[in-house]
Amino acid sequence: MDIVVQKYGGTSLGDLDKIKKVAKKIKDRKDSGDKLVVVVSAMGNTTDSLKSMACRLSENPKPRELDVLMSTGEQVSIALLSIALNDMGCKARSFTGHQIGLVTEGYHTKSKITDIDASIIFQELDKDNVVIVAGFQGINSNNEITTLGRGGSDTTAVALAAKLSAVCEIYTDVDGIYTIDPGLYPKARKLESISYEEMMEMASLGSGVMHPRSIEIGHNYKVPIYVAISTGECPGTFIKESDNSMEKTVITGLAVDNNDAMVTVNNFPYAVHSVSELFKGLAEKHINVDMISQTTPVDNKISVSFTIPRDDLDTALKSLKELESKTGSFITETDTNITKLSVVGMGMKTQSGVAARLFSVLAENSINIKIITTSEIRISCTIDPGDQAKAVSAIAEEFDL
Amino acid sequence: MDIVVQKYGGTSLGDLDKIKKVAKKIKDRKDSGDKLVVVVSAMGNTTDSLKSMACRLSENPKPRELDVLMSTGEQVSIALLSIALNDMGCKARSFTGHQIGLVTEGYHTKSKITDIDASIIFQELDKDNVVIVAGFQGINSNNEITTLGRGGSDTTAVALAAKLSAVCEIYTDVDGIYTIDPGLYPKARKLESISYEEMMEMASLGSGVMHPRSIEIGHNYKVPIYVAISTGECPGTFIKESDNSMEKTVITGLAVDNNDAMVTVNNFPYAVHSVSELFKGLAEKHINVDMISQTTPVDNKISVSFTIPRDDLDTALKSLKELESKTGSFITETDTNITKLSVVGMGMKTQSGVAARLFSVLAENSINIKIITTSEIRISCTIDPGDQAKAVSAIAEEFDL
Repeated sequence: MDIVVQKYGGTSLGDLDKIKKVAKKIKDRKDSGDKLVVVVSAMGNTTDSLKSMACRLSENPKPRELDVLMSTGEQVSIALLSIALNDMGCKARSFTGHQIGLVTEGYHTKSKITDIDASIIFQELDKDNVVIVAGFQGINSNNEITTLGRGGSDTTAVALAAKLSAVCEIYTDVDGIYTIDPGLYPKARKLESISYEEMMEMASLGSGVMHPRSIEIGHNYKVPIYVAISTGECPGTFIKESDNSMEKTVITGLAVDNNDAMVTVNNFPYAVHSVSELFKGLAEKHINVDMISQTTPVDNKISVSFTIPRDDLDTALKSLKELESKTGSFITETDTNITKLSVVGMGMKTQSGVAARLFSVLAENSINIKIITTSEIRISCTIDPGDQAKAVSAIAEEFDL
Repeated sequence: MDIVVQKYGGTSLGDLDKIKKVAKKIKDRKDSGDKLVVVVSAMGNTTDSLKSMACRLSENPKPRELDVLMSTGEQVSIALLSIALNDMGCKARSFTGHQIGLVTEGYHTKSKITDIDASIIFQELDKDNVVIVAGFQGINSNNEITTLGRGGSDTTAVALAAKLSAVCEIYTDVDGIYTIDPGLYPKARKLESISYEEMMEMASLGSGVMHPRSIEIGHNYKVPIYVAISTGECPGTFIKESDNSMEKTVITGLAVDNNDAMVTVNNFPYAVHSVSELFKGLAEKHINVDMISQTTPVDNKISVSFTIPRDDLDTALKSLKELESKTGSFITETDTNITKLSVVGMGMKTQSGVAARLFSVLAENSINIKIITTSEIRISCTIDPGDQAKAVSAIAEEFDL
């Protein structure tokens, strides 16, 4: 008898009929003998409608109150799913983040989980109940309602699985993890399995299926994660520790991200603290910098380019303005017309020449690269969005994706 | 600097514009120097839509889960009102039932308040915050979300006012308490004040403005209550202890209730325990019996008539069926076609002949009375619904309502 944590996303719970279908699936699984903890998101686009109400009342709604508001979406879902299950004769009880002692720290609307009171869940499982848990929400040490930010329900599910030493099944509206988003490249292959490290890179590069934070927790606590379509019509993808059973490919996947902007500062003073001051300023404003490249100094001046989420561009420019009071003036250029391509693969650790193969494929197709960064298992470059389709096909063929 | 507990009903918070208007009113009041605790209901018909979703999933949704579901309505309201207030520069913080330690006992969907942790509220008031509290909800000793049943937000507001030694202002969609529902009798007068006792009778007789439970708490803790229209365009009605300042009328109000059914058991055994068994059976099924009349025994058999909410009729008949196994068989008749008229007034305590005046008015107008009950400050009788309009006018004129 295993404990299984399942998570159902908002699309899977989009209306009452879908809730009944999910309930049926849970009942069948429980009847097969497993102990089930089910994490749910808000129904359909509830979260967006709640947020839009708040934004119509205030341009800057208080984050504390946004959390009180947004967390109601998941609370509705847990109650309805529990009602549907009990109606089918399957004993179920719903729990909010507060009720399972899901304690968080950090900022409202983007809090982090610090602990979960597993004893409550074990008690309920012992009474043969399905435990339905509201995803995305918790409570901080001041007893205030908090939410976990984007992908928060995945994070709740993986964290619960970690705490309960359970496997975690993420049911969503896509049927697994692909080498490339099939919307961009229809010939993309579905992966049977992918390592945590690769999935973390893919996720943080905008491959959308899961939030990188949840994968990181999975990695840290070695939680076996299975991603599949909620209707269960075909097998999904396992996210697990890299092992010999995995396919021996150099590149596991290609991710494309069109949500970044590139910022270049020219004529920037080449001093010990200037570059670190630049990125400290951005970090203080909670801006996630991805790619960074820096030129060698000429006349004690350098150029630094970096990419950030396009939504944070205004905030970043404000931070740079503030920086000029410390460093003296420099020239800032921005480019919002970029596409970020990233190839990811554990194989890169052991095989050399991957970057060279990638760049020559792009060169053969006359595709210009603006900036490049590499890590142990990832190579990213930005290109012109007009070249995206050509680049995706060429890379997919070269690396057999 | 006084502490004022205000309560705004669902109609007053029906859309975002109305929420802004309520926020403006709260801000003005706070600017005038008062410390404010504001209790809110769910927006518009949110509670009904939530309930209807539950009922589409199950004919008998689990009460525990209904409470989890329904309580989200008020949680949305507190967050939005707090966002609107903060946007106006008026510091406000929202609290769920759980967060202010509003502890309840009893059944889910109709729990009773046992305590409130006032220290949290005093702390917030000391920080100059408006405290926005979700009405209708609490938490029981098992840390489960509970709701207070019909009129629950009024009950929350009056209980809070009692705990904080504050006055309680109920803002609603009617502009005060009238001698008779103006919808039934347009010439009805608005009362400047009414005693708790009278209001409790009026409320329990279906005069709709406030729930009797909240008045009872007000009475027990001597909380001054003021009922007025939320737009504040005209003065409302004070509910307070009976004193000499109140108008010296015999009858304060007339209440009409069309939601009751009458049950008559004929050929019922006249034994020590039989009648008490009858009403014990109904009480065990949580059926609220209002009027009771019993005939004198003939051949050791009696007739007993009583009125109950029409919604409880099926349950009541089931209870009577069970009773026959103990008492032997009897004949049960039901009448769902009744109107209950009640006149209420503290003056009845000291003035005699009120019942006689009432019955002769009805007789002069050829109105038949089915059953009659009287208490110290109330006389009720059931009549044919067809006679209602005639009866209301005649009584109103006789007693100058």
